[in-house]
Amino acid sequence: MPEQSEPKVPAADPTPAPEGAGAVEPDARPRGRFSRRRALGAAGVGVAGTAVGLAGGIGVARASVEPPAPAGPKIYPFYGDHQAGITTPAQDRLHFAAFDVTTTDRAELVSLLQDWTTAAARMTQGEGAGEYGPTSGPYDAPPDDTGEAIGLPASGLTLTFGFGPSLFRESGRDRFGLAARQPAALKRLPLFPGDNLDESRSDGDLCVQACADDPQVAVHAIRNLARIAFGRAAIRWSQLGFGRTSSTSTSQATARNLFGFKDGTMNLKAEDPAGVDAHVWVPSGADPRAAWLSGGSYLVTRRINMTIETWDRQALSEQERVVGRTKAEGAPLSGGGEFSQPDFTMAGRGNEPIIATDAHVRLAHPDNNHGVQLLRRGYNFVDGSTGLGRLDAGLFFMAYVTDPRTHYIPLQTKLSRTDGLQEYLQHTGSALFAVPPGAKSGEHIGQALFA
Amino acid sequence: MPEQSEPKVPAADPTPAPEGAGAVEPDARPRGRFSRRRALGAAGVGVAGTAVGLAGGIGVARASVEPPAPAGPKIYPFYGDHQAGITTPAQDRLHFAAFDVTTTDRAELVSLLQDWTTAAARMTQGEGAGEYGPTSGPYDAPPDDTGEAIGLPASGLTLTFGFGPSLFRESGRDRFGLAARQPAALKRLPLFPGDNLDESRSDGDLCVQACADDPQVAVHAIRNLARIAFGRAAIRWSQLGFGRTSSTSTSQATARNLFGFKDGTMNLKAEDPAGVDAHVWVPSGADPRAAWLSGGSYLVTRRINMTIETWDRQALSEQERVVGRTKAEGAPLSGGGEFSQPDFTMAGRGNEPIIATDAHVRLAHPDNNHGVQLLRRGYNFVDGSTGLGRLDAGLFFMAYVTDPRTHYIPLQTKLSRTDGLQEYLQHTGSALFAVPPGAKSGEHIGQALFA
Repeated sequence: MPEQSEPKVPAADPTPAPEGAGAVEPDARPRGRFSRRRALGAAGVGVAGTAVGLAGGIGVARASVEPPAPAGPKIYPFYGDHQAGITTPAQDRLHFAAFDVTTTDRAELVSLLQDWTTAAARMTQGEGAGEYGPTSGPYDAPPDDTGEAIGLPASGLTLTFGFGPSLFRESGRDRFGLAARQPAALKRLPLFPGDNLDESRSDGDLCVQACADDPQVAVHAIRNLARIAFGRAAIRWSQLGFGRTSSTSTSQATARNLFGFKDGTMNLKAEDPAGVDAHVWVPSGADPRAAWLSGGSYLVTRRINMTIETWDRQALSEQERVVGRTKAEGAPLSGGGEFSQPDFTMAGRGNEPIIATDAHVRLAHPDNNHGVQLLRRGYNFVDGSTGLGRLDAGLFFMAYVTDPRTHYIPLQTKLSRTDGLQEYLQHTGSALFAVPPGAKSGEHIGQALFA
Repeated sequence: MPEQSEPKVPAADPTPAPEGAGAVEPDARPRGRFSRRRALGAAGVGVAGTAVGLAGGIGVARASVEPPAPAGPKIYPFYGDHQAGITTPAQDRLHFAAFDVTTTDRAELVSLLQDWTTAAARMTQGEGAGEYGPTSGPYDAPPDDTGEAIGLPASGLTLTFGFGPSLFRESGRDRFGLAARQPAALKRLPLFPGDNLDESRSDGDLCVQACADDPQVAVHAIRNLARIAFGRAAIRWSQLGFGRTSSTSTSQATARNLFGFKDGTMNLKAEDPAGVDAHVWVPSGADPRAAWLSGGSYLVTRRINMTIETWDRQALSEQERVVGRTKAEGAPLSGGGEFSQPDFTMAGRGNEPIIATDAHVRLAHPDNNHGVQLLRRGYNFVDGSTGLGRLDAGLFFMAYVTDPRTHYIPLQTKLSRTDGLQEYLQHTGSALFAVPPGAKSGEHIGQALFA
């Protein structure tokens, strides 16, 4: 039946059928050449680095003033002095993955970082993970992109890579000849009072933070990096998040966490370069063992479950007392607006402080922590529900800091002992990573570590 | 220190301090009156029922043609002949929850449905869950809204309620005097070949499907309904999803599932009212025991894990062979474009059919299933990763059908035995619910069942 088996060329496929193509066989059929690159075309290129679409952010202002601008064409450069995804205005969705390196060969680890760099540089620009993309490669080979992001814009995707302490040394063993370069600050975080850590949600040799305004784009990126890692590294744990709870730019309104409160009012913002320099980047000369980390940062991740059902049964007065801010406006209980400085000395009836001694805002404020500031990039999460009929929900805390020994551990030690909020929290995951500086075009992420 | 303890009225709070207010005490402090209702104001009202913002959908067209319109002001009516969230153009995000009823008292069950109806009618219009909202109620009582959606627009939120078989009868026991009204079609779904069901992700007495264009809005709705249910019902399981994989309107481009293929090309669309009448709504007189269900539907939910790591190692040719469509365009392998009818008789080399005998498109096509069509509203999901270093990912399948005995069970029985895709799937959750018709203003959801 030659007529019947003559292929019709798909209407939207620009590739003509091969000359003389007769019966359509799977290995001879003309493939669609639809790549993300082509789908994006001019629309996606040319606005690199701009933060369009985030003005107004997620907060109150957005709904009452104007709807958000479309997130579609936002593209951030991959290469640069610092990795993107740190001071980049926090995107709305997160997929974070920690990996165990499964190879024991240093060259394979390096090749993995090379391959990840190449793929990340492509995907963050809205292209497929590999040269051919999902549908234009050899027909009898697995595609070099999994395809679920075909036609989706870059959506502000950033991919940020980090190295865990166990990459340098595990049970005292120098796995890849890197032990001499392990930064002194890169140690497993201590167990804080009240921690209830799940090993399978903690630590990791490598990490990738994927942030985007479309979850399908973030998931696509992690999934393709995991696919590329096959045989060299495997996912140890991963976490999805939504509703960024920490603005990292003054162009963003403050979002709310699942306690219903604004979160991140006092966060370090990209528009404060002196603050970012002082509190986020690792200065050159900070650690003679780790010159490779200059211009990088440390990333603390904590999976913080909230007992929201208990919280929801507390009076508004108790909720505000514990936080130290109003729920509506996010203003300190001492008065003013969201961005007013709290007055910790103000006293009320019975000479008790208006902002309670165990209020979160008091304990976490830089003035009460030797001026320490964190650049937080937290996300809300809901991972279904527990067997006890409660939502498995909370905050996936992420903070970028210049040194965890000064900028996280003392603060969390204090909070875990005295913060009133702690009654409604349980830390179930914990990790620390060294985040190398950005790569230059032609280099791979972390190249200086292996030089 | 009376001066020092004089409150400053927060700048953005329109409520003046009470006359003569002196020291600021938690129980006397003026509360912010910022409600979602006020924040939305005129911007949110007046476009009820319109489907702005979805033209172009998520597919290829969107990125290459124009960015999506802002989803902000979209509001769907809650009351009507049918519940919203069925033929409503599928929103981008899902939070689905199944509940166990914990009370044994029929009156309490009815009061729960009344309370849920009231709260759902409010939240879908962009208001708080209760009269006072998150911050304007009595200061020494828990707020009647949890607050994390303050300032967020309605985001197209729909809330759709259903009743599981176990609400009517459990272990033969008539729990609430409803057994005589149990529809004959409302039985636990059978175990299909290859099912690997997790009891803790299956079944349930009640269900709520929350769909919205913002996950924080969908999560807020389920969380507040769970809070309201306290003491009467508790969450049994819940599922988040993103990237709707089934368009329910011709205004939406076809989205892609995590196999990277377009999903739902042949889905029933709202613009086909005759098809919807024939295949979705329960006709009056369908079941003499269940007149209360006329104008309602049945909802099948299946949590379908995909073994994406295995899939990703298959050749493009194998992927397309198993699906029966091209990956790029979604066209049938027999030719044409995405919406061309497949030619199941077309033969290729060796007279083998071009569309394989076990191809998904062949087995699922209405022509090969007595004309049966489903209205699917599936969502992709990624629930972190398994202990084996793989993503816990797949498709949360939802389908609304006029009768599961004709419209789902025979089809799934066949697919589970012969579908080539089955090799890459594992069904890990399963449930069936009767979805009553819409409520009229003043009624509660499912009122006719209890009349």
